[in-house]
Amino acid sequence: MSTQKLMPDLRAAIAASGLKNGGTVSFHHHLRNGDHVMNMVMDEIARMGFSDITVAASSLFAVHEPLVEHIRTGVISGIHTAYMSGPVAHAVTRGMLRRPAVMHTHGGRARSIESGALRIDVAFIAAPTADNLGNINGVAGKSACGTLGYAVADAHFAVCVVAVTDNLVPYPACPIAISQDHVDYVVEVPSIGDPAGILSGTTRATTDPVGLEIARSASKVIAASGLLVDGFSFQTGAGGISLAVAAELKQLMQDRRVQGSFASGGITGYIVDMLDAGLFRTLFDVQCFDLKAVESFRRNPCHQPMSASLYANPHRRGAVVDQLDVMILGATEIDLAFNVNVTTGSDGMIMGGSGGHADTAAGAKLSIVTTKLNAGGYAKVTGRVTTVTTPGASVDVLVTDEGVAVSPLRPDLLERLRASGIQLRSIGELKELAEARATREPQRPSGEARIVAVVEYRDGTVLDVVRMVS
Amino acid sequence: MSTQKLMPDLRAAIAASGLKNGGTVSFHHHLRNGDHVMNMVMDEIARMGFSDITVAASSLFAVHEPLVEHIRTGVISGIHTAYMSGPVAHAVTRGMLRRPAVMHTHGGRARSIESGALRIDVAFIAAPTADNLGNINGVAGKSACGTLGYAVADAHFAVCVVAVTDNLVPYPACPIAISQDHVDYVVEVPSIGDPAGILSGTTRATTDPVGLEIARSASKVIAASGLLVDGFSFQTGAGGISLAVAAELKQLMQDRRVQGSFASGGITGYIVDMLDAGLFRTLFDVQCFDLKAVESFRRNPCHQPMSASLYANPHRRGAVVDQLDVMILGATEIDLAFNVNVTTGSDGMIMGGSGGHADTAAGAKLSIVTTKLNAGGYAKVTGRVTTVTTPGASVDVLVTDEGVAVSPLRPDLLERLRASGIQLRSIGELKELAEARATREPQRPSGEARIVAVVEYRDGTVLDVVRMVS
Repeated sequence: MSTQKLMPDLRAAIAASGLKNGGTVSFHHHLRNGDHVMNMVMDEIARMGFSDITVAASSLFAVHEPLVEHIRTGVISGIHTAYMSGPVAHAVTRGMLRRPAVMHTHGGRARSIESGALRIDVAFIAAPTADNLGNINGVAGKSACGTLGYAVADAHFAVCVVAVTDNLVPYPACPIAISQDHVDYVVEVPSIGDPAGILSGTTRATTDPVGLEIARSASKVIAASGLLVDGFSFQTGAGGISLAVAAELKQLMQDRRVQGSFASGGITGYIVDMLDAGLFRTLFDVQCFDLKAVESFRRNPCHQPMSASLYANPHRRGAVVDQLDVMILGATEIDLAFNVNVTTGSDGMIMGGSGGHADTAAGAKLSIVTTKLNAGGYAKVTGRVTTVTTPGASVDVLVTDEGVAVSPLRPDLLERLRASGIQLRSIGELKELAEARATREPQRPSGEARIVAVVEYRDGTVLDVVRMVS
Repeated sequence: MSTQKLMPDLRAAIAASGLKNGGTVSFHHHLRNGDHVMNMVMDEIARMGFSDITVAASSLFAVHEPLVEHIRTGVISGIHTAYMSGPVAHAVTRGMLRRPAVMHTHGGRARSIESGALRIDVAFIAAPTADNLGNINGVAGKSACGTLGYAVADAHFAVCVVAVTDNLVPYPACPIAISQDHVDYVVEVPSIGDPAGILSGTTRATTDPVGLEIARSASKVIAASGLLVDGFSFQTGAGGISLAVAAELKQLMQDRRVQGSFASGGITGYIVDMLDAGLFRTLFDVQCFDLKAVESFRRNPCHQPMSASLYANPHRRGAVVDQLDVMILGATEIDLAFNVNVTTGSDGMIMGGSGGHADTAAGAKLSIVTTKLNAGGYAKVTGRVTTVTTPGASVDVLVTDEGVAVSPLRPDLLERLRASGIQLRSIGELKELAEARATREPQRPSGEARIVAVVEYRDGTVLDVVRMVS
């Protein structure tokens, strides 16, 4: 039996996929702000005359600006995503999308796809390497991005799966990240992405003295937490302060001769250095953030791939986030109840989303939010966040440039930090300080404005809504 | 959130699994005739007083003799398997099992599990290495067996999954073949298997002159087929003649300077040598047959694992068997319609089963059955096989010690072989020769005897039945 999966172009693949008006198409975001695939596919879907399509993209970036026109014309009527920034986020907040966008977490996305709550009719999988039968990987080719953790649920559960590649190799591809038994069609295109936008050449820690001071404080909190023993596990984002915490932690682990069990998440060169130095035995990598991470994933079997479901799905048999000791989190705003907003900016516009924020905060034994007290003239510690991305119940401590506040739910931690001589303040004091220094007031949308997005917690319950900014 | 998956013993895991009378439990056969897990689990299930249990084991061997007592007492009332030999097969043929056994193919097993036709309540997964959260691999530990291809469908689709290990390692295990998001419980036991029964030290080609002659003929058929060009793909079993064909083929590929794309199946040292010599770019390995294969799988990323579904599931998006050029198959009997029996012996007793026989025969462009004309005094080419394991429509050519017969469905192949000067006979002539030399007649069960097993084709249709031998 011979199976012809190779389609001459995207139009043929879309036609073969059985997509109908009202259907749902999905995309992963491993090509980040260099992604060409979502725009190419949605342009073709628009040209073919489809309407009322839901886009289930694991994240949306500035590069996806062409989607705004498809939203305006009704080709796209719904969006499910864990993160959006740029013109699409702007258009959604301005009320252009017909139905409220659904903003979930990375783990919540895997949960909703795998449970059938979010049915994907056609998954379009940007494939840095693919063969004619649909065996794909992310480590080879001009658009190499590393692991393909966010695409696994789509590949395994979509009704139809289309691999889109700019590096068609002889059968069989090797290594195989997603195998042919999950792929219906393969389309070769000239380019799936712009390497400059796919990976940072190098991710860098902040050099700003205030940021470095916060990172040092966070590292002291970890040192005092009692968690920094052999078997320690750790995750941090790719932001400047987060990476500075990793650099501090590296030194701390070397000084104390601690060997961690794993680091997880989106992986950067900083974390690779820690693996190579023997500070962690393994990595769980859902996406590679920089070239060094891709290179490490290619060569080192201890640098393991991780699907979004293994990473953070709350309804499978225990995700990696549940094994985390320490998680370093960012915040746009944090409030007196330790609720964190990373979804909307001070103007009420959507400019992000949970990604793995709420997942890791829920799972980690110690979730540390690091932030400056003020930014752009605004107070970042506030009475009530504009949008709740992560519930305060899963945030343990806030580290700022003016001291550390511990959640009232963690008196044990407060005791430990106090004993270590860390400068402690109440969250109320930090709010007062932040507000006293603020020169601008955030523009909060009216509570009567139309709902443009629903923020879902990782288990699918509604955590908050985002209202239209006119 | 902390999840306690580690159970003190099998009894606790079985109790926690929610197993009920009438339920189905599953096992993989990577530990082959060295497996301890199925016996331990079924003994415990019996001690706990369960009855009417269906055992869905990917294969059953002589080592599983203790199951006979559980069949006798009604603890086990049903069996689904792709292969059985030894006392359990004997007991089934003697009519001891309450319901007819279902004998499927390796691909059919994956299909029926993944489609929900075969619901597994509890999968017990023998794990040569596991951590306390259920990340497992087959490459480390004293019971290392290599890949875990036959366990993947069970792990992904069973209602409850229990990993049973004799090598509990610190979290997280590395590498991970089956990940924690699919595993509910972990049990540590002193030994999951006897290394002497798990792997052959070395698999060996036949040294019998008649077998070697058949292998040379098979290699001439491949050489003449037109398929032996760059990109060539190949599979063979681990039997003596099959391995001798691999040895012949190795020489042929070196002489012709052909580089194959892949070899697949259960992998032996012979195939590893061909990979290492650059004769194949990659391997697809569903199970390692010997130590050399395990060692290669550990070190060589081009030696890739393959689930049973990727291998041979006919209802996914195209299995590896569909990409095979040449498959070398064995036969207990083959008949005038090229139907092959590898399920029952000359006494009508079950002594095997399809495994991947029917899957690969259906998929390969050229499926070659190699067999001696006679064995043990019986004719192996016959008018009608006792049991149809693989339909003749998917068998292309029969190679014996007295010549080669081409299926009437392949006049193109007949033409090629004739042009190459290969000694050709009709299947009828081979039957006459075999029968003339036979000194014994097979004992066929009465057509009115009770049905003790149903032979399912890979798509689930009933291909044949096995009747009771009293």
